[in-house]
Amino acid sequence: MTTTAAQKRARAKVEYDAFLAACPSRLLLARISDKWVALILAALSGQRSMRYSELSRRLAGVSQKMLTQTLRSLERDGLVSRTVTATVPVTVTYELTGLGTSLQGVMCELKGWAEAHMGEVLANRAAHEVAGAAPGVEH
Amino acid sequence: MTTTAAQKRARAKVEYDAFLAACPSRLLLARISDKWVALILAALSGQRSMRYSELSRRLAGVSQKMLTQTLRSLERDGLVSRTVTATVPVTVTYELTGLGTSLQGVMCELKGWAEAHMGEVLANRAAHEVAGAAPGVEH
Repeated sequence: MTTTAAQKRARAKVEYDAFLAACPSRLLLARISDKWVALILAALSGQRSMRYSELSRRLAGVSQKMLTQTLRSLERDGLVSRTVTATVPVTVTYELTGLGTSLQGVMCELKGWAEAHMGEVLANRAAHEVAGAAPGVEH
Repeated sequence: MTTTAAQKRARAKVEYDAFLAACPSRLLLARISDKWVALILAALSGQRSMRYSELSRRLAGVSQKMLTQTLRSLERDGLVSRTVTATVPVTVTYELTGLGTSLQGVMCELKGWAEAHMGEVLANRAAHEVAGAAPGVEH
């Protein structure tokens, strides 16, 4: 019994496979494979909820257009919920849904991996450049 | 001594923070947040090594340009190693390095998440559309 993968699929009922070009999960994988999605989920994972302006500060350098667009797509997919409170001016807050929480761990790991292995990657790039510059080295 | 500096940093655990716009880990996070990177690492994680043509078939629909470009960047960053064997025609194979293997688990989880939650996301999108279409609903 090849168990786990097969059981998971059986429970999920429909078989999605992102290796297939026409599978909708390929598009979903493309959508969540995004640095802003990773950073938004990582930011929200440490907080119960965040205001738009707090998110904007946390994700230093994000444009308003990109932040709004990414939040809308996360809201549409049900990963983030948006609450509007009728203060003056209006307060808009975002928090992770249950679905968003289920992805949050992977996103924090992805961000953590980039931070933890940055030194190693920089060293590899430098070594690769040296190897590429050396004469007679097939590359 | 760029390598030593990088090594020192790795050892000293220099703090990289992808929340900061100027941190190099922001760029690394952007590079690994890519569906082709996720699919290449997931494909290689099941095999000891794969030929270019095998990878191309496994990642249905990937263009030759995109596959070549992504593999080159993974090789440069030290996540994937490329081996050329002098057969006729030449055989080129790819396999995960130790560094690539350390990211492979997260990538498989990301792909698995998209496949496992596709149904839920589709239902959320449909509900979101209905809610958006309903009159008088603030959105």
